[in-house]
Amino acid sequence: MTITLNEIVKLIKEFDNFLILTHRRPDGDTLGCAGGLAQGLGELGKTAHVLPNPETTPRYMQLVEDYLAPENYVPQCIITVDTATLDLLPENALKYADKITICIDHHSSNPLYAKYTYLDAQCASCGELVYDILIALSGSVSAKTAGHLYAALSTDTGCFAYANTTAKVLQTAARLIEAGAPHREMNKAFFRTRTRSRVKIEGAIFSEMEFCFNGAVAIATITRAMLEQSGAVEDDLDDIASLPGSIEGVVVGITIRELTSERDCKISVRSSPSVNSNEICAHFGGGGHAMAAGASVNGTIGEIKERLYSILSEIFK
Amino acid sequence: MTITLNEIVKLIKEFDNFLILTHRRPDGDTLGCAGGLAQGLGELGKTAHVLPNPETTPRYMQLVEDYLAPENYVPQCIITVDTATLDLLPENALKYADKITICIDHHSSNPLYAKYTYLDAQCASCGELVYDILIALSGSVSAKTAGHLYAALSTDTGCFAYANTTAKVLQTAARLIEAGAPHREMNKAFFRTRTRSRVKIEGAIFSEMEFCFNGAVAIATITRAMLEQSGAVEDDLDDIASLPGSIEGVVVGITIRELTSERDCKISVRSSPSVNSNEICAHFGGGGHAMAAGASVNGTIGEIKERLYSILSEIFK
Repeated sequence: MTITLNEIVKLIKEFDNFLILTHRRPDGDTLGCAGGLAQGLGELGKTAHVLPNPETTPRYMQLVEDYLAPENYVPQCIITVDTATLDLLPENALKYADKITICIDHHSSNPLYAKYTYLDAQCASCGELVYDILIALSGSVSAKTAGHLYAALSTDTGCFAYANTTAKVLQTAARLIEAGAPHREMNKAFFRTRTRSRVKIEGAIFSEMEFCFNGAVAIATITRAMLEQSGAVEDDLDDIASLPGSIEGVVVGITIRELTSERDCKISVRSSPSVNSNEICAHFGGGGHAMAAGASVNGTIGEIKERLYSILSEIFK
Repeated sequence: MTITLNEIVKLIKEFDNFLILTHRRPDGDTLGCAGGLAQGLGELGKTAHVLPNPETTPRYMQLVEDYLAPENYVPQCIITVDTATLDLLPENALKYADKITICIDHHSSNPLYAKYTYLDAQCASCGELVYDILIALSGSVSAKTAGHLYAALSTDTGCFAYANTTAKVLQTAARLIEAGAPHREMNKAFFRTRTRSRVKIEGAIFSEMEFCFNGAVAIATITRAMLEQSGAVEDDLDDIASLPGSIEGVVVGITIRELTSERDCKISVRSSPSVNSNEICAHFGGGGHAMAAGASVNGTIGEIKERLYSILSEIFK
């Protein structure tokens, strides 16, 4: 069932010994929410830990490293943040899948898998919901909490440049800065710093990029060979899926990336409001938001492109 | 003399037939301020025009095209926006240089050349000052005014990612969005769209970039030949000066660009707070802000680099 802000505040007050779960391929929003919630609850005298997520990259480790759950931690209340479905839980969290008390999320597709779900799909980032909860609980957030939540808000909106940006997310970001969030350092690290490997992989992606449907669609491919040649690691690929959609005239930007083998691929779709990314990814068993979605696909880059041409032909006919 | 918000509001109420001047190489802030002020004053029943700036690029033309002054316009009150010195006026504005009634600016280096100067160097963009003035004048801004001012705020802060970003600029941006600014379209056009020429020139700049002082300094050069080969035009070079500073580990990012000849160059310096860009540019007779400054230099790229090494050696000794 879904619950209101008052109800989640009441629930959190009643519980203690929280365990916070983040989603697979964790981004700044899920990790910033986890760290911000753990820090905020700790300041209220609660015990709160974050389940270590094996896929956490160095870029975002600072958001959760102070709250990682010890091995034999026995939680009383399990909370997921920014996690749209149970499928998105990492391997080591699956044992908690049927014991989730509270889900805090901003994905409209959330099937309400938790006992209680606090959901607002109008929010650009899940971090806004955590902020509202902490303010309702205690009236303020510390500089450290504010920093974690600023990471959540800013990364999920591409530093307030994506189409999901709202007046509310800007107002909340302003309050986090007033509370002491180190926004200058974070903006520099997250949005204004590129490694030399990142510059190389971007160059390779752009030189291989395919344009079709009169330039309305751009398809980027990232092979394991390209990663090896550029020396790029996971952290260098942050938000890489936004590249094809960033070229003038492109309405749908698609990124196909080889993961562990040539048949283990991930597609990411970013679109203008006129095209529904979620529907494109649903053809591959994936999903997400209307303007940003993804899917895991068993197939080669060539096979995936063929299926995409067919799906896109229907859209651009 | 400097004046307060109340005083500038009183002045504007007394005058009519405004002419608004923008600075050379006009950016989104000066043009957004000019368009926003002209639109806002027009809605208050005043006559307000913007002096055509011959260097206005297509990207920003939409901000001022509805307010361009007719040839024989006789202004009563001349206002400069975002213009730190009289040297920055374009050729066709020089005849007004000794007749400027009001200057609205956010550069601390402003020598107070106008009769009345409304200045707040704490503001990230001059657009915030124009917003405050219009709100003080009439209590609200229209969607069209809000759009122009959103362009000013967002472009001067790199979509709220630069170090000059404050809680105030985010709050003001939130209010502009609530007032109807088309922030999604503007963010897409200004920050999430690259032309194919832009991608090419970026690739060329990165492949030629020079790193020195253990990677703390990156120097990018843009020659006329590089521009020709990439097909890049002025609009493709927007914010290009931020590239060298965007590489991991770089404290001072310098861009040297050839303009009309190989001895007609412009240098742009972007730095972390530990180094003063303004002081570096002062060696070349230029100036600006502590973390972003520029200068026009008579000399070849090679000569300028030699002078820079010498200046930087003092800083990094």
